[in-house]
Amino acid sequence: MTTVLIANRGEIALRILRATKRLGLRSVCVFSDADRGAPYLALADQAICIGPAPAAKSYLNIPALLQAAQITGATMIHPGYGFLAERADFAQAVAEAGLILVGPPADVMRMMGDKVLAKRAMLAAGVPCVPGPSSVLPDDPEQIAQLADDIGYPVILKAAGGGGGRGMRIVRTPADLPEAFMLTRQEAQRFFGNPDIYMEKFLQRPRHVEIQVIADHFGNALWLGERDCSMQRRHQKVIEEAPAPHIDRDLIAAIGARCAKACQDIGYTGAGTFEFLYEDGAFYFIEMNTRIQVEHPVTELITGLDIVALQIDVARGLPLPVQQSDLVSAGHAIECRINAEDPATFAPSPGQITYLHLPGGPGIRVDTHLVSGAEVPAHYDSMIAKVIAHGATRDEALARLRAALGEMQVQGVATNLPLQRALLSETDFAAGGVSIHHLEHWLSTRENAHV
Amino acid sequence: MTTVLIANRGEIALRILRATKRLGLRSVCVFSDADRGAPYLALADQAICIGPAPAAKSYLNIPALLQAAQITGATMIHPGYGFLAERADFAQAVAEAGLILVGPPADVMRMMGDKVLAKRAMLAAGVPCVPGPSSVLPDDPEQIAQLADDIGYPVILKAAGGGGGRGMRIVRTPADLPEAFMLTRQEAQRFFGNPDIYMEKFLQRPRHVEIQVIADHFGNALWLGERDCSMQRRHQKVIEEAPAPHIDRDLIAAIGARCAKACQDIGYTGAGTFEFLYEDGAFYFIEMNTRIQVEHPVTELITGLDIVALQIDVARGLPLPVQQSDLVSAGHAIECRINAEDPATFAPSPGQITYLHLPGGPGIRVDTHLVSGAEVPAHYDSMIAKVIAHGATRDEALARLRAALGEMQVQGVATNLPLQRALLSETDFAAGGVSIHHLEHWLSTRENAHV
Repeated sequence: MTTVLIANRGEIALRILRATKRLGLRSVCVFSDADRGAPYLALADQAICIGPAPAAKSYLNIPALLQAAQITGATMIHPGYGFLAERADFAQAVAEAGLILVGPPADVMRMMGDKVLAKRAMLAAGVPCVPGPSSVLPDDPEQIAQLADDIGYPVILKAAGGGGGRGMRIVRTPADLPEAFMLTRQEAQRFFGNPDIYMEKFLQRPRHVEIQVIADHFGNALWLGERDCSMQRRHQKVIEEAPAPHIDRDLIAAIGARCAKACQDIGYTGAGTFEFLYEDGAFYFIEMNTRIQVEHPVTELITGLDIVALQIDVARGLPLPVQQSDLVSAGHAIECRINAEDPATFAPSPGQITYLHLPGGPGIRVDTHLVSGAEVPAHYDSMIAKVIAHGATRDEALARLRAALGEMQVQGVATNLPLQRALLSETDFAAGGVSIHHLEHWLSTRENAHV
Repeated sequence: MTTVLIANRGEIALRILRATKRLGLRSVCVFSDADRGAPYLALADQAICIGPAPAAKSYLNIPALLQAAQITGATMIHPGYGFLAERADFAQAVAEAGLILVGPPADVMRMMGDKVLAKRAMLAAGVPCVPGPSSVLPDDPEQIAQLADDIGYPVILKAAGGGGGRGMRIVRTPADLPEAFMLTRQEAQRFFGNPDIYMEKFLQRPRHVEIQVIADHFGNALWLGERDCSMQRRHQKVIEEAPAPHIDRDLIAAIGARCAKACQDIGYTGAGTFEFLYEDGAFYFIEMNTRIQVEHPVTELITGLDIVALQIDVARGLPLPVQQSDLVSAGHAIECRINAEDPATFAPSPGQITYLHLPGGPGIRVDTHLVSGAEVPAHYDSMIAKVIAHGATRDEALARLRAALGEMQVQGVATNLPLQRALLSETDFAAGGVSIHHLEHWLSTRENAHV
């Protein structure tokens, strides 16, 4: 029987574990010293310690993971999200060890991890990108000034090796350009070891809308709908939903079809997400995530698909069981990320969950690895649960989600439940279609400073 | 704000509580001494003790419930299932106290609670019934023998006031009839205080298929699909699913439409279920349940409706928000009832839940009021959770449910999880369409005696 090693922890480890059970595969969970005794580990067919608490010594420890696979007889490795999920060197090491990574080939991952190469590939595939040159900036200040004039201010400078909001700088006037360029280049070198910078049009109030895709090894590629993840704080998504409100369906279908086609063009396999900014009726590609997303459940709820099981199936060489024309999109789904953090300061709040009551009922799904008594270690991401509501309409999903968060109780650690409850009752979010700047603006206003 | 008193306990109390939260209504939970401190009580806006542990002194104590409503300002009472849910005297007392019962009018409840009156009403409404006279049996042995000859052996004798499998006797030959009649009459008098008996055709290997309906106070009545609940032990349902496998959809649609029409004919309001036996392509009405059913979630999963919220809405005078033509039926759903009972002897297994891990993931819903540390009192029904799976096809729902039950862990009390896991892997159930006798036959065979 095929054994899948789950190279991750927490809710996504349990999510992957559930997919292996669903497929009747053997599962191995790895754990760090900090996660020893975590309840979900008992559900795996085998659990194996891979090192001390710091991620660099365990969940990011490639030799330890490959050794764990060898010891346990695992032939497949699912990296989840975060940690090694988008590390091309890991993908390559897995392949060289004769194992199957649940993800795209290492070279495709590497290409899509490089912003400039990725943008070039997308332009070639007909996927719309943010206006700006698809090559890195030259050193000549006059040439740079000319490029910025061509694009039109404001522009944004981005480190080619950056991501997650780091190594970026907005430039609003020609006078600011020289210094901004110098500072961004210094940061790019210091933080990412790569001084290359590119420039593009800066969108004022865009939304974050992304397309979920999945592709098999037989040239089949599907797009599974879009998600609106505009509710963000410091580039961290807080609420996600599908479909994206108030966007022309024909436009989305055209973009989705381009993304599926792009997968075929670049030889992509597995699940992936094309992230776009959306403003004034136009989509602009920003990056591709070559892994499962935290927010995949909203797509699962409206399509009825098990995306993680599909990931594993295509990785082990099975063809996709459905065609684009078979896919349905039923109703609306919204997800709130529940983090163990102080709702006012956003500081992480690790500790023991002394009591946990999870919501439920019609249309409610909760993805969490926690039970009463479980520990939230200080070493890792503070996200401890995802509460997702599905309804026939957006209003119904929202009403169900409000009731669900009202019911949820977490004791022992602080959580962002007060913030999430407030956001779900907020007028602009209820109307749908807020920009990526909305949450930070909302947080900065006095009346919402203490939710 | 409207306050709803929840006149029940356990999972259905939490289910109703969730519906009140969804609708933004105030909720009051009642509890007996045995349920004091139950975690779900903390979720209600108010919780009030109504008496000692024995149900007769608390959950069946009509004066205590009405007093609780008065004290807490409740204007609506939801009875759930079991306890007082089908007691016409309770419905009448609620109405006389000026309160709204979430259920049909007392007189309709009374009529449908009387097998003979119910059958007569159904025949008048064109709902097919089991062949047999729709009036109670005369005293004259010769007349009775003639009636049995007309119906054709085997026949079954049933106490008019009975239900749940009690007060019934199968008669296979004319010679057995006189004694069977005498014994059934004695039991009817002794157990139900009503000596009336009726007779009908006994079906050999029928299936139990029921139609969910809901009707408002404006003459609108919908049927929300059917459920197959044939997997039973001693007339207790063990597994339920929707749709019913291998039955002609046009036939079901015709029966469903008759049931909706019957609701209009008899002045039915609220949610209800028409229970049928199904054999050889024909439906035979057996009884109507004038309340929410335990197995309502399977219908919710395929229709996307919140039936309990709809119940409350129609009870408070709102029109049904959808028409028959709006309803969808998407995929397949299967529910397993998880009971705290010895899997071999079926003896109840009360006690403290020392550890609970609930399953989850795509398509899985769990309805339970339990958390780790909660008590299962010895005084009440042993059902502690319902695990329900939804999938695009029956095979997918079944695979998801198998994985979910494989993942579920309950420590501290014995449960029927081993039985349920075995049933889900059983060939006949996997094929679909087993009869109501299947489970008892399966249990009686040696190789399955110890699951």
